[in-house]
Amino acid sequence: MKLIKNVKFLIVGLGLIGGSYAQALSDLGYEVGAITRSQKSIDYALEKGFISSGTTEVTKEYVEDFDVIVFALYPKVLLSWLENYQGYFKSGALITDVTGVKGSIVYKIQDMLRDDVEFVGAHPMAGKEVYGVENADKSIFRNANYIVTPTDKNTKEGIEACAQLGRLLGFKTVAELSPEKHDEMIGFLSQLTHCIAVSLMTCKESEDLVNYTGDSFRDLTRIAKINEDMWCELFLLNKCELLSQMELFIEKFNELKEGIENSDTEKIKSIMRTSTQRRRYFDKK
Amino acid sequence: MKLIKNVKFLIVGLGLIGGSYAQALSDLGYEVGAITRSQKSIDYALEKGFISSGTTEVTKEYVEDFDVIVFALYPKVLLSWLENYQGYFKSGALITDVTGVKGSIVYKIQDMLRDDVEFVGAHPMAGKEVYGVENADKSIFRNANYIVTPTDKNTKEGIEACAQLGRLLGFKTVAELSPEKHDEMIGFLSQLTHCIAVSLMTCKESEDLVNYTGDSFRDLTRIAKINEDMWCELFLLNKCELLSQMELFIEKFNELKEGIENSDTEKIKSIMRTSTQRRRYFDKK
Repeated sequence: MKLIKNVKFLIVGLGLIGGSYAQALSDLGYEVGAITRSQKSIDYALEKGFISSGTTEVTKEYVEDFDVIVFALYPKVLLSWLENYQGYFKSGALITDVTGVKGSIVYKIQDMLRDDVEFVGAHPMAGKEVYGVENADKSIFRNANYIVTPTDKNTKEGIEACAQLGRLLGFKTVAELSPEKHDEMIGFLSQLTHCIAVSLMTCKESEDLVNYTGDSFRDLTRIAKINEDMWCELFLLNKCELLSQMELFIEKFNELKEGIENSDTEKIKSIMRTSTQRRRYFDKK
Repeated sequence: MKLIKNVKFLIVGLGLIGGSYAQALSDLGYEVGAITRSQKSIDYALEKGFISSGTTEVTKEYVEDFDVIVFALYPKVLLSWLENYQGYFKSGALITDVTGVKGSIVYKIQDMLRDDVEFVGAHPMAGKEVYGVENADKSIFRNANYIVTPTDKNTKEGIEACAQLGRLLGFKTVAELSPEKHDEMIGFLSQLTHCIAVSLMTCKESEDLVNYTGDSFRDLTRIAKINEDMWCELFLLNKCELLSQMELFIEKFNELKEGIENSDTEKIKSIMRTSTQRRRYFDKK
């Protein structure tokens, strides 16, 4: 499938990410529909021109009109949606998602799915600390990465169409990783960082610390304002990988702690030099 | 001492912070001199109008001309400077510093210092990840906190003059803490955060991770590019306090890890809710 102009997109789940997909695709001239639980979200998206139609009810008549269906739901809701309604898809439809974990989701979906539609997993690594379609904003994709996570079950065409979607949405980079590599990477870069931020934030009943807080503490805890339902689900769906990343971090943290305990300046400085050198890779150009 | 217009300031150590002090005070119309090791730094500061005089040599003739002396040196260099040259101060001079630890510095200085000058410790909680007078920029004070750390040895006038200096420099808030309270606070808000950032950054040889890195990892490791000489010295000068803050963090991190190990969603969510609630205090207004 090529994502030419007459391709119709259905967004299932009009939250921050689903809404931003809808906005970006409508702005490009595509026809975009939506299914979501709240009529208010549909009304908002219609008013803003993010979608040209939308419904809170899942019907075959509505669903079968679309060529590409993007699921922007919590993982477990996504799985039960597919169980209940996959019969409604148009034959040949391309199905994709935005879920932040892959190994525990992608294979399950591909196993349960009809043979005449194709599911290609994708993870748009973009977000905000706010939620809902009212905060949708396609500019969050601009400096972000989009990862396609194909398996043996996927076709070249399906993978390429899914990657093309990432480029259409305006992501800075579109990459391809196996579900396993994705989960390892996300366990480290995203889930571990959230665990650290949350742990730091819960160390102290810290209202009075506000008066003394500089940018360091603010930077390290920005993501500590966290949607507990979504992140708890994501953590547990990537439990093994996340736990091994957490252990790696504790090991490194204890190495530095030992250096300090022993006033071992050479060890401390050597760790800091490695840190400085590695951080340079991540300076934004 | 009131910091009226004919008060003369001497900055000892023209780096990022010393240079920014000089710039701010000169812009206010004060006469500012400097002593620093590199002639190049003096030339730069003279050319930019940060100072009206400067020298690489410490002479009585030069030092005794100044009413307020600000030390922007590494802690150990500061202590040995005072040992060698405190005889040069004008009688009645106000001495202050910018050191990031207090308990291990302030009392030592006050014990060794002549009786006819007054030392009031201060910590301007501002910085950048770059160094040197060439990067001096008084705007770093604008959203930052300035902490005065008086002891029983200080006079009301000395404390007030030191606080006035913080206000003159343009700090957002000027607060007062005992050296001990300061070190506890800084051990948590600043030193622990640097330990976390450094540990996270050294977990992996991560050049290829750059392609997948979102803002979370970048935010948590911004301060991982670290001046190892300065921070190693600061860590060890606040060793006990820092270690106890590190232990607190490990405890909280392990609590969350246990929740994940046991798939204890209620525990995980409850930690996250506390985190979200506490982070709200720190949203910048």
